[in-house]
Amino acid sequence: MGRKIRVIQYGAGPIGLKAVEYIAGRSHLQIVGAVDTDPAKIGRDLGELAGLPAPLGVTVSGDASDVLRRTGADAVVLTTTSTLEKIKPQILEIVSFGKNVVSSCEELTYPWITQPAIAWEIHEAAVANSVSVLATGVNPGFLMDFLPLVMTGICKDVTHIRVERIQDARHRRLPFQKKIGAGLTMEAFQTKAKEGILRHVGLTESIHLIASGLGWTLDRTEDILSPVKAASRITTEHLIIEPGQASGVSQIGRGYRNGEEVITLNFRASVGEPNPLERIVIEGSPRIDLTITDGVNGDVATCAIMTNAIPVVVEAEPGLRTMADVRPIACRG
Amino acid sequence: MGRKIRVIQYGAGPIGLKAVEYIAGRSHLQIVGAVDTDPAKIGRDLGELAGLPAPLGVTVSGDASDVLRRTGADAVVLTTTSTLEKIKPQILEIVSFGKNVVSSCEELTYPWITQPAIAWEIHEAAVANSVSVLATGVNPGFLMDFLPLVMTGICKDVTHIRVERIQDARHRRLPFQKKIGAGLTMEAFQTKAKEGILRHVGLTESIHLIASGLGWTLDRTEDILSPVKAASRITTEHLIIEPGQASGVSQIGRGYRNGEEVITLNFRASVGEPNPLERIVIEGSPRIDLTITDGVNGDVATCAIMTNAIPVVVEAEPGLRTMADVRPIACRG
Repeated sequence: MGRKIRVIQYGAGPIGLKAVEYIAGRSHLQIVGAVDTDPAKIGRDLGELAGLPAPLGVTVSGDASDVLRRTGADAVVLTTTSTLEKIKPQILEIVSFGKNVVSSCEELTYPWITQPAIAWEIHEAAVANSVSVLATGVNPGFLMDFLPLVMTGICKDVTHIRVERIQDARHRRLPFQKKIGAGLTMEAFQTKAKEGILRHVGLTESIHLIASGLGWTLDRTEDILSPVKAASRITTEHLIIEPGQASGVSQIGRGYRNGEEVITLNFRASVGEPNPLERIVIEGSPRIDLTITDGVNGDVATCAIMTNAIPVVVEAEPGLRTMADVRPIACRG
Repeated sequence: MGRKIRVIQYGAGPIGLKAVEYIAGRSHLQIVGAVDTDPAKIGRDLGELAGLPAPLGVTVSGDASDVLRRTGADAVVLTTTSTLEKIKPQILEIVSFGKNVVSSCEELTYPWITQPAIAWEIHEAAVANSVSVLATGVNPGFLMDFLPLVMTGICKDVTHIRVERIQDARHRRLPFQKKIGAGLTMEAFQTKAKEGILRHVGLTESIHLIASGLGWTLDRTEDILSPVKAASRITTEHLIIEPGQASGVSQIGRGYRNGEEVITLNFRASVGEPNPLERIVIEGSPRIDLTITDGVNGDVATCAIMTNAIPVVVEAEPGLRTMADVRPIACRG
């Protein structure tokens, strides 16, 4: 490997700081800049914020334009928001400075059907600046879309794809436990669900990523959310959940083709979930029934795949890319 | 999708003819030529040989040069041999006519370490003719190399990869049962093993494909073969295996890095194998323990992935490609 790939970390929340830890551990990557809007973080050393044993010598700035203008970097790891509309101006600015983007933004993993105007705007800006933009993560980005899609590579035909991601959120960070509604009363859960705050973002994007890879045109998709109710008191490092309160969220995504349900994504994350696992069942020839025992820790996996994606995105064809059209991402230590 | 991709089938053995069946079932692919050296097949309709309900209107020719010269085709599906040295002149001729290659040749899946001179010769010829060459299949090509490699994409670090492919060969075709030594006495098994006839080809290539994807330089590899002994009489459609005879083969591949075993591939295929499965265990962060229940039928999967690879190879960057550097292959119906 030649010179190091130079990386700016844009977003110093929990995911961004864990990514910093992983990027700092790779000999072929170098962190050269940092951006966050939080006044408590601006001016501090990024390594210190990430809990690294030594400072990185990279100070967090609140001025993204200034960092992007002054810093010679190949790629930006962008971990600011799940919402495409909010991340769009950040991406347009980054690519205007000729820098590639790896992001954890869930709505960016496959926005071609859900928000095509923004997808095209980002794509055209990336092409015009000869850089590429990729959103990835454990989910969306891998377990419920990329992995089932590549498993179909050994199939002669496919009639239905079912993916289950059942997670125990007991040891996840507090923002994640809150995001899935753990500790809320049923009423509070329903209220927050209506506000769109509780949902796992990306189920619809995963459905469209699978369908596009299979060349399937879908009639419609569904994303239906309901609470998981605690049967007994659950105590975690962060929370106490009383019986009858929500311990998490259950979410079913469905994709229909010619009137038939052809993709079913079953996402459940709750504190104290008894049998965490990942499962992919492909009805086809051959039938495939794949299980990952004990599931996959989402925070570690999301930050790992973003780190592993950096060299792939730097080399990728310019434009808005998806996990289905970049070369396979592996752990290059 | 625009015009159909035009395909020549080169090799009309069991794998080639099954590929023909799958290719003929795809609306975006069209078979336009066929080559085989078997006098019993020359002059016959390829669809008839493949057992299709209707003739394809494509006659098998014994003259590869003539077919390649006269037939406007985008890709050749090459299923003639497992041996790189034997397939090399065929590939060089195909690429000289500007046609892309998808092959099931096991030694071609990752020849860069095992036979680098031939790998370079093929690569340079492909680049010079602006076409690409890819070998794929269920194994090598997917289950014991590509799949564990992409699973590391969600890992922060990896210390060891173990893959088990345990197959029941009861319902496989007779050439496969013979290839794994089913029905031989122990003496005959050992004799044939010494002649290099019985081995599953590709374990070493799989090890190198994984290592290359992880950026690992290996000190050395091992590929150790032993018989699986039948405990009681086993009767199949094709064979009777007496107690004490070989029912199949067990093969262990190992890759060492800095003196430590870092890749372990355990391949076992026997008639009557009680618990067929595929398993991948990645020691790393996070640890991944993946199982495909009941395993995967190899013949179906190999012919399916070759079929699914055709559009990917046609679009790939020119040269000798591997599964680790083309875009992900999915089942496009």
